[in-house]
Amino acid sequence: MVNEMTENHRVFVDLTVATMGVTQTAYGLIEDAAIAVSDGRIDWVGARNDLPAQYATLAQQPLGGRLVTPGLIDCHTHIVHGGDRAVEFEMRLNGASYEEVARAGGGIVSTVKATRAASEDLLLADALRRVDVLMSEGVTSIEIKSGYGLDIETELRMLRVARAVMANRPIRVKTTFLGAHATPPEYAGHNDAYIDEVCIPALRAAHGEGLVDAVDGFCEGIAFQPDQIARVFDVARELGLPVKLHAEQLSNLGGARLAASYGALSADHIEYLDEDGVKAMADAGTVAVILPGAFYTLRETQEPPIDLLRKHGVPMALATDINPGSSPLNSLLLTLNMGCTLFRMTPEEALRGATANAARALGLTDTGTIAPGMRADMAVWDIKHPAELAYRIGFNPLHSRIFGGTS
Amino acid sequence: MVNEMTENHRVFVDLTVATMGVTQTAYGLIEDAAIAVSDGRIDWVGARNDLPAQYATLAQQPLGGRLVTPGLIDCHTHIVHGGDRAVEFEMRLNGASYEEVARAGGGIVSTVKATRAASEDLLLADALRRVDVLMSEGVTSIEIKSGYGLDIETELRMLRVARAVMANRPIRVKTTFLGAHATPPEYAGHNDAYIDEVCIPALRAAHGEGLVDAVDGFCEGIAFQPDQIARVFDVARELGLPVKLHAEQLSNLGGARLAASYGALSADHIEYLDEDGVKAMADAGTVAVILPGAFYTLRETQEPPIDLLRKHGVPMALATDINPGSSPLNSLLLTLNMGCTLFRMTPEEALRGATANAARALGLTDTGTIAPGMRADMAVWDIKHPAELAYRIGFNPLHSRIFGGTS
Ligand SMILES: [Zn+2]
Ligand SMILES: [Zn+2]
Repeated sequence: MVNEMTENHRVFVDLTVATMGVTQTAYGLIEDAAIAVSDGRIDWVGARNDLPAQYATLAQQPLGGRLVTPGLIDCHTHIVHGGDRAVEFEMRLNGASYEEVARAGGGIVSTVKATRAASEDLLLADALRRVDVLMSEGVTSIEIKSGYGLDIETELRMLRVARAVMANRPIRVKTTFLGAHATPPEYAGHNDAYIDEVCIPALRAAHGEGLVDAVDGFCEGIAFQPDQIARVFDVARELGLPVKLHAEQLSNLGGARLAASYGALSADHIEYLDEDGVKAMADAGTVAVILPGAFYTLRETQEPPIDLLRKHGVPMALATDINPGSSPLNSLLLTLNMGCTLFRMTPEEALRGATANAARALGLTDTGTIAPGMRADMAVWDIKHPAELAYRIGFNPLHSRIFGGTS
Repeated sequence: MVNEMTENHRVFVDLTVATMGVTQTAYGLIEDAAIAVSDGRIDWVGARNDLPAQYATLAQQPLGGRLVTPGLIDCHTHIVHGGDRAVEFEMRLNGASYEEVARAGGGIVSTVKATRAASEDLLLADALRRVDVLMSEGVTSIEIKSGYGLDIETELRMLRVARAVMANRPIRVKTTFLGAHATPPEYAGHNDAYIDEVCIPALRAAHGEGLVDAVDGFCEGIAFQPDQIARVFDVARELGLPVKLHAEQLSNLGGARLAASYGALSADHIEYLDEDGVKAMADAGTVAVILPGAFYTLRETQEPPIDLLRKHGVPMALATDINPGSSPLNSLLLTLNMGCTLFRMTPEEALRGATANAARALGLTDTGTIAPGMRADMAVWDIKHPAELAYRIGFNPLHSRIFGGTS
């Protein structure tokens, strides 16, 4: 029989830990460390020699000198969606124009069509395939957005599937309502009507079912104007929901400033963000979510203002943005490398961006660092130094994953 | 008991096959196909309805409608090496100059030092970790270069380890002697002496032990001049060994033309190749090996002349170039995506580059396509269309891998 005390109360030893707490050392690194866990929470972390006597009698689980980090967090995903866009990818590379792709039914419309046509079971099965890949990389929390339904019924179905992911896998899911993602074909040219007749009613309905943890929008010339986003955010505020925004990806419409004025959790993409926008984010405590997968896929050249974000102390997160069009990127580890290679983030910034700062972008206060009182969400790696996580490309050194204390 | 007839002679059915043969259809695609295999070779491939009667009585193995491609081939790797360069990666991103990195023992010298210090067992264990990742992506043949020993003993040790990879895993390995990779510290400023006193004697010794399948060099301002490479190639010719060359990566020294004049199997990197060089390669039947991982990692901007290669009918291959410095890229699937995203290759060119044309770059005539008489080296994928292999980023849809007829 399993000794429940032993299962629920134990001390991990023979390890190096990157706590990702704000400490004097890079990564909050502690060599020859110990981590005491009970009932899924971290009780104590520090140098093994300093382990308090009260933990000395607990079962010890040696980790063979491996590196332990917080479980990774992917704070921006569109992981629930129907279909794929491989044929469109190929058409474009064979020289098809955007018009030709559109005539062949490509673009975001094709994903909306496939998502509307997909059952909850099919959407879930497809999403779980992608979630499993993230979990194999030590991911313990993810965000999932709606935004490919663009009608009330399908937006709610997407969010139900997002909740179902959490019921089917040992992973935390935060849901984000993204009705203001694009205008569906039936409202083409009538963005305001779409916002009023579909987006806001869908938000209220989804909130009524308890399906919404945050509210997002896409503020861009090809999507929605700031005043339209503001109308959605006003409803979010009324409902007591935090907001975030796809902002300044392809141009500067002042989206990040708008988001900051609502105390947004995050502004995401932000390639075209200027210093005023950075300052507004700093003042509001809004996280900058950097999404190199879309930058890479779209062959963009305008890099996000990493130096300005550093200068003003805006916390930076890194996420996959996994979606079938502009970022079919299913690897958070690869995202770390892209953040470093494409945007010259440091490996420490990258790892903080997929742990502590990603938690903050989701409003999670109980995960993202290894510290007393936090959930025991951790990743154990077959590497010596945390810089290796960002250095390698297409290599996954995960040894094991601990979710709420359970491996 | 296993029926040996059943094991050695069988027909795969319920599948789509991308034969990658030169046919009227893209990818040599055949839907609802059958593939008859006996004794590790392909006997027949075609539409299932056309299956000749002689195969109708064999055991059938249904593949659930999955896609079958040739086993993937990584035709340019430095997968055997000591140590890693994660700390150097981090130093650079923290703003260290090349001088500071060099003073801290970084750069290729650090890999040479680590490789010289590593036992055959350690080098093999490290290489197998990386080989296993490639195998998990359906790779059935790889090339492995020496070139981090830069002394006779270590160059031979690297090649012995490359041979040992094949003894320890179900994978084909072609070895390449790359003594002319860099000048070791003890010969700094004396490239000619290094070529004469170390590189050529090492080549002769390695060939004497049967360790060399091809001979390579690095023709570049920071490495070796064409006349130095030519001296090595002359010895290769004398020994009856085919050659290939790292050429035109950072500048145009006419390396590809030189390689073509020796009837080289391939010229690799070739970002700075001009049309004369392309023509020379076309005339010689030399394969262009495109290496987007190094381009990405070094943040290069000069793209290889894909359109010129197409215009003159030079076959293009794609490879990881996996090495600890300029391309710590351990994924051939990701390489396909990079070839498409960074260089606008088509998904079909990308897959041909990691199958049929990669085989050609290695001088292999019995693998790389699915056709009668070829080895039954195949990959079975959980996808519908081969374009998906290049479309997704950091997602591995391999279902199973068949090596010489054995899964
Ligand atoms: Zn997004
Ligand atoms: Zn190379």
